[in-house]
Amino acid sequence: MKSPIQQYLDALHEQLQANTEGTPYQGIPATAVADPQKFGICLATVDGVVYEAGDTDELFSIQSISKPFTYALALEDLGSEAVGQKIDVEPSGDAFNEISLQRGTGRPDNPMINAGAIAAVSLIKSRGPRSRFSRIQDFYSSFAGRDLELSSSVFNGERMTGFRNRALAQLLRSFEIIEDDPDGVVEDYFRQCSIMVNARDLALMAATLANGGVHPREHNQVVEPETVQNVLSVMTTCGMYDDAGSWTTSVGLPAKSGVGGGIIAVLPGQLGIAIYSPPLDAHGSSVRGVETCTRLARDMGLHFMRSGRPGRSSIRSHYTLRDSFSGVRRTTESVEVLEAHADKCVILELGGDLLFAETETVVRTITDEQEDMELLILDLRKVDDFGPVALRMMTQLVSNFEAEGKSICLIDPDGAVTSQLASECSMTIASFPGHPAAMEWAETHILERFAPELVSPQSVDVAATATLEPVSPEDVQKIEELLEDRRYEAGHVIRRIGQPFTGIQFIVSGRVSLTGRATDGSRFRQATLGPGMTFGEIALGASGQQQTTVTALETTKVRVLTHHALEDLEKDHPDTALRLWKAIARDAYTRVEQTMKDNAIRLRG
Amino acid sequence: MKSPIQQYLDALHEQLQANTEGTPYQGIPATAVADPQKFGICLATVDGVVYEAGDTDELFSIQSISKPFTYALALEDLGSEAVGQKIDVEPSGDAFNEISLQRGTGRPDNPMINAGAIAAVSLIKSRGPRSRFSRIQDFYSSFAGRDLELSSSVFNGERMTGFRNRALAQLLRSFEIIEDDPDGVVEDYFRQCSIMVNARDLALMAATLANGGVHPREHNQVVEPETVQNVLSVMTTCGMYDDAGSWTTSVGLPAKSGVGGGIIAVLPGQLGIAIYSPPLDAHGSSVRGVETCTRLARDMGLHFMRSGRPGRSSIRSHYTLRDSFSGVRRTTESVEVLEAHADKCVILELGGDLLFAETETVVRTITDEQEDMELLILDLRKVDDFGPVALRMMTQLVSNFEAEGKSICLIDPDGAVTSQLASECSMTIASFPGHPAAMEWAETHILERFAPELVSPQSVDVAATATLEPVSPEDVQKIEELLEDRRYEAGHVIRRIGQPFTGIQFIVSGRVSLTGRATDGSRFRQATLGPGMTFGEIALGASGQQQTTVTALETTKVRVLTHHALEDLEKDHPDTALRLWKAIARDAYTRVEQTMKDNAIRLRG
Repeated sequence: MKSPIQQYLDALHEQLQANTEGTPYQGIPATAVADPQKFGICLATVDGVVYEAGDTDELFSIQSISKPFTYALALEDLGSEAVGQKIDVEPSGDAFNEISLQRGTGRPDNPMINAGAIAAVSLIKSRGPRSRFSRIQDFYSSFAGRDLELSSSVFNGERMTGFRNRALAQLLRSFEIIEDDPDGVVEDYFRQCSIMVNARDLALMAATLANGGVHPREHNQVVEPETVQNVLSVMTTCGMYDDAGSWTTSVGLPAKSGVGGGIIAVLPGQLGIAIYSPPLDAHGSSVRGVETCTRLARDMGLHFMRSGRPGRSSIRSHYTLRDSFSGVRRTTESVEVLEAHADKCVILELGGDLLFAETETVVRTITDEQEDMELLILDLRKVDDFGPVALRMMTQLVSNFEAEGKSICLIDPDGAVTSQLASECSMTIASFPGHPAAMEWAETHILERFAPELVSPQSVDVAATATLEPVSPEDVQKIEELLEDRRYEAGHVIRRIGQPFTGIQFIVSGRVSLTGRATDGSRFRQATLGPGMTFGEIALGASGQQQTTVTALETTKVRVLTHHALEDLEKDHPDTALRLWKAIARDAYTRVEQTMKDNAIRLRG
Repeated sequence: MKSPIQQYLDALHEQLQANTEGTPYQGIPATAVADPQKFGICLATVDGVVYEAGDTDELFSIQSISKPFTYALALEDLGSEAVGQKIDVEPSGDAFNEISLQRGTGRPDNPMINAGAIAAVSLIKSRGPRSRFSRIQDFYSSFAGRDLELSSSVFNGERMTGFRNRALAQLLRSFEIIEDDPDGVVEDYFRQCSIMVNARDLALMAATLANGGVHPREHNQVVEPETVQNVLSVMTTCGMYDDAGSWTTSVGLPAKSGVGGGIIAVLPGQLGIAIYSPPLDAHGSSVRGVETCTRLARDMGLHFMRSGRPGRSSIRSHYTLRDSFSGVRRTTESVEVLEAHADKCVILELGGDLLFAETETVVRTITDEQEDMELLILDLRKVDDFGPVALRMMTQLVSNFEAEGKSICLIDPDGAVTSQLASECSMTIASFPGHPAAMEWAETHILERFAPELVSPQSVDVAATATLEPVSPEDVQKIEELLEDRRYEAGHVIRRIGQPFTGIQFIVSGRVSLTGRATDGSRFRQATLGPGMTFGEIALGASGQQQTTVTALETTKVRVLTHHALEDLEKDHPDTALRLWKAIARDAYTRVEQTMKDNAIRLRG
C-alpha cells in the first residue's frame, strides 16, 4: 500500500519544482555551474526512517550548514562557558559575511555568521594524530553516519576568492579572539565548507540533532544533549542570517542554510529535514528550500510555538480500592475488613506527557485528597513522558508522604520511573508491573494494619474457600470425600496454557502463580494465589482449554476434585452435584462482575 | 497536605530574596523610589490554577511588557501582512531605547524595541466611542481578567522624561511609518506603559498566551491562535532586548521584561510565569526575575528545545479480530466464518501525541500490512493530541483505502477526530465510542461479505442460543416447556443495575442494549444483543445484582426462564437442571476466557 507521507512529499516536490526563482551562488566556480533544476527533499525521523523525493543523491558542498556542527564540536571540547568568551550567542541582524565584531572585545555576535564560524574553527585543536580539520571531518561524518569527503575543486575555489574571510580571520586575530595562526584557521574553514554531502546526509545530520545527539540509525551518542540544546537555540535565533526573525515567525524550526543550495531544519524529538536546490534568494538561502520548509511547517503543524489543542487530562482515572479489588478470592472476614477501609487507598491512573501543567494537576489532586487517605497507587502505564518537573515534584511528595506515615506505590512495568525516583529519594519505592499485583499489595497493607491476624493464613480448609461458600456443610463433606491430596514442589508447573479441564484444585497451603501469554507471545504474571483459592476451573469455558500456566512458587498442597470425581459425584449424589455446579456458575459470574467493574473504571477516563 | 509546587516556589523565593544586586529604574520618579526588597513570583497554569510566593499583590507599571500585547492587538486589527509592512520581526541586537530604524524604509526591526512599539501603538485606531488608548486598556484587561488602571503619577513621569521616545515618534513620522500625529501616538505609548499590574495579573496575561489566546479562567478567546504564534515567536527572538540570544540558550522561553521590575515568560500549552522585583540589571531586566526564570527553566526542564526522552511508541497494541472478538455470542456457523477471516481485520490501538514522528510510525505500520487486510480499526481512546500532520495523513489514507475497496473505522469516544476527518474527506467515517461495538461492526462486515445469509437473523430458536449449545434436544425441550413469552416495546427498560437475579432471558427477535455505569456515575453502552443471545444471568454472581441496565432498542420478543421455573426444573428434572447449570457455568467461563484474551492484548502494549 502507498505511504501517504511519500505521496505528500512527491506532490510537494512536483509543485515546488515549478518555482524557478533565484540563481545558484556565483562566488565560486563549482557552485556557479550547479544545475538549477536539481531539487531533492529528504526527511529522516528520529527512528531512522528516511523519506526521499527528487535528487537526494546529488552531492554538493555543505558551506555554511557546517557552522552549527563545528560550533557543536567546540562546545563538546571546551564547554559553553569557555566558548562563550570567544563567541556570543546574540542575533546580529547582519548579513552572513558582514564584517561586524562587538565593540571593544571584537567578539563575534554568534557562531552562525562567518566571523563566529571562523572563531569556532580556531577553538578546535588537533588531537594526537588527528589534525584540526580531520577532527572536524570525522565529527561531521559521525552525524551523517558515513565518511564525508572534501571536494578539492570547491576548496580551491574558496581559497582563491575568500579575501573577505581572510580579512575577518586577521581581524579576529588582532582582537585575540583567534589565538592561532589566522591563515591556518581560515584554510580549515574553507576546507570545512568544501565537505560534500547530499540531502540524505544532511537529513540524518539534522535528525541526529532532533534525536538529542544520538544518531537515529547508528544509535551512538554523537554529542551531548546539552550541546544539542545550545546549538538548536542558536540556530533558532541566528540560523537564517538576517532573515532569522521572519523565519521564526513563519516556519518556527531551528534551521541553517548554505550557499551550496542546502538547507536543514530540525523538529526536536521528531524529525530532521534537508533540501537541496541550488538557486538562492537575496539572503543566500535556497529558494525551493525555504519554500519547502514553509510548506512543511504549515501543512504539518511543525511550528515550535504551536500551542496545539490541550492534551487530555493527565488523570485518566481516579478511584479507590473499593472500585477495583485485586480479584484475589479472600475469606468473608477479610473481605469485610477490606470493605471497611477500601476508601483509604486511592488509585490515580496517569497518562500522556507529565510536563508542568499535567504534573501540577496530578500533584493538586493528590494534595486535595481526604486526610484519611493512607495509600496512594500511581498507575503510570499510560504515561509517555515522565519529565523533570514530574520527577522533582514526586520526589517531594514521597518525602511528604513518608513524613505523614502514608505510603505510595507505583504501577510501572519497566521500572524506569521507580528507579529514578528511588535514587532521588534515597529510599525504596514499592512498584509493580501490573494492576492486580498493586491492588493485592494495597489489600495486604490494609489487612496488616487493621486485621493482622487475617494476613496470609498458613493453611485453609477446603470448606472455607470462596467457591464453596454457598454450599452446605453436608454437601461439602460429600465433596471432600472425593478429593485427592497432591503436593507440588517450588517451580513445578501444575497446569499449562492449552491443556483441557481435568479438575478444580483447592489450595490448602503454599502459593502458585498464574502466567498468561500476551498476543506477541511474551508471558506476564496475572496473579498469585494462596490458601483458600482455587484454580483449573477456567478450562470449563467453550474453548475447553486452560488459559494460564499455573506454577508452584513454594511447596504447595492442594486438594483436587478431578473431572472423574466430579462425574462420580453427578452420578452418586446428583443433588449435591447440582448445588456444586450452581456454586461454580456463581463463582464464574463473580469474576465476570469484577471484570465489568474494572471496565467501568477504564471507561471513566 | 502541602503542595510540592508551593513548597518549591516558597523555597525558590526565599533563596533568591537574598540576591540584592541591581538598582530600580531611575528614569522616572515613580519607579526610582520602588522598594528593592519587594519580590513576588506567580505561576498561572492553562487550567487557571495560580501559585504565588511573596509580593504578588504589589502594583507596578507594566512598562515594556505592554509591547507584545499592543503588537497582538495590531495583528488582530490588521493581520500580520499589513503590520509587517510597518514593523519587521528581526532581532536588532540593539538596546531597547536605541534609535535604530532600517536603512531606506525607516521600518523598526521588531515590535519589542521602543521604535517598533511606538509604531504598533500608531496602528491601533479608535473605534466608535472607544479611543485608541481605551481599546489598548480594554485589551490588556481581557488578558488579565480584570479592569486594569492607569497610574497618572507614572504617566506624568513618562511624559516629563520621554524625550528620546518623542524623537523616535517624530523620526517614524518622517519615514511615514507613523501616519497619525506622532505626539498623540507617543502620549498613548506613555499611557500604555503606565498601566498598573501586579505579578498575578501578568501571570494570567502570560497564561492566556500559553493557552492559545484563551483566558484560563474566563475561558473567552482573547486573541486568535495565529496571533499568539506570531507574538510568541517575536518574544523568543527579540523579547529580552540585546540579551535575547543568551536568554534563548539558557532559559529558552519566550519572555518580556519591563523597567518597572516585571518580567513574564510563557511555556506554550502549559504555563504563564510572572515575577516582580524592581532592581534591574544592565539590560534593564529585573535581576531576581531573570534568575527566577533561569532556575525554573533548569529545575523544571522548561526549555523549548528540550528534546526530552522519546515518548513511548504511538502504537500501543497491534492485533487482529482473532485476538478480540466482540463477545457477541453467535452461532457455531457464524463463528466458523469469523474465525476463517478474522486476520483480515487489523486493530491498531494508538496513544500519546500524534505529531510527525508518531504519525509516521502509524502510517508506515498500516502501509506495511498484508495485502489481504480488508478492515482497519484505529482505536484512538488513548490518543492525546491528534495533530495536523495526523489529520492530513489519515485523510490521504482514507482515500487510499476507499480506492482499494478496504474499510476504516475509528474508536473515538467523543467523535472529535471522526468529524474532522469526515469533513476533510467529504465522506462518512465509521466510528464507535467503545471497543466491543467496533468489533461487532467488523464482524458484521465480515459476515456480510463472506456469509451474508448469517447476518442478523430475524428470529432465532431458543435451542440455537450459544448458552444451550451443550444441552441435548431432549433437555432443551423440557426447559422450553417452562419458558414464559414476553414482548417489550422499544425504549422499555427490562432490567436495571442493582436488581436481583430473576431469570435468564433468551432473545428470540429484536435488539436490546446493555448500559453500564462508570465509577463517576456516567453511563456507557456496553453491548447490543440480538436474536440467539441471552441476558439476566450476570446477577448470578456473588453480589447477586444485575450489573447492567437492559433496554429494548426495538420491539423485542424474549423467552424467559424465571428463577421460579428454574427451581421447578431443579425439583422435577434434577438431571436436566444439572446439565443446564453446567451449561451456564461453561457460558460464564467462556466470558472469563474472553476477558483474559482482552487482557493479553492490553498487556502487550
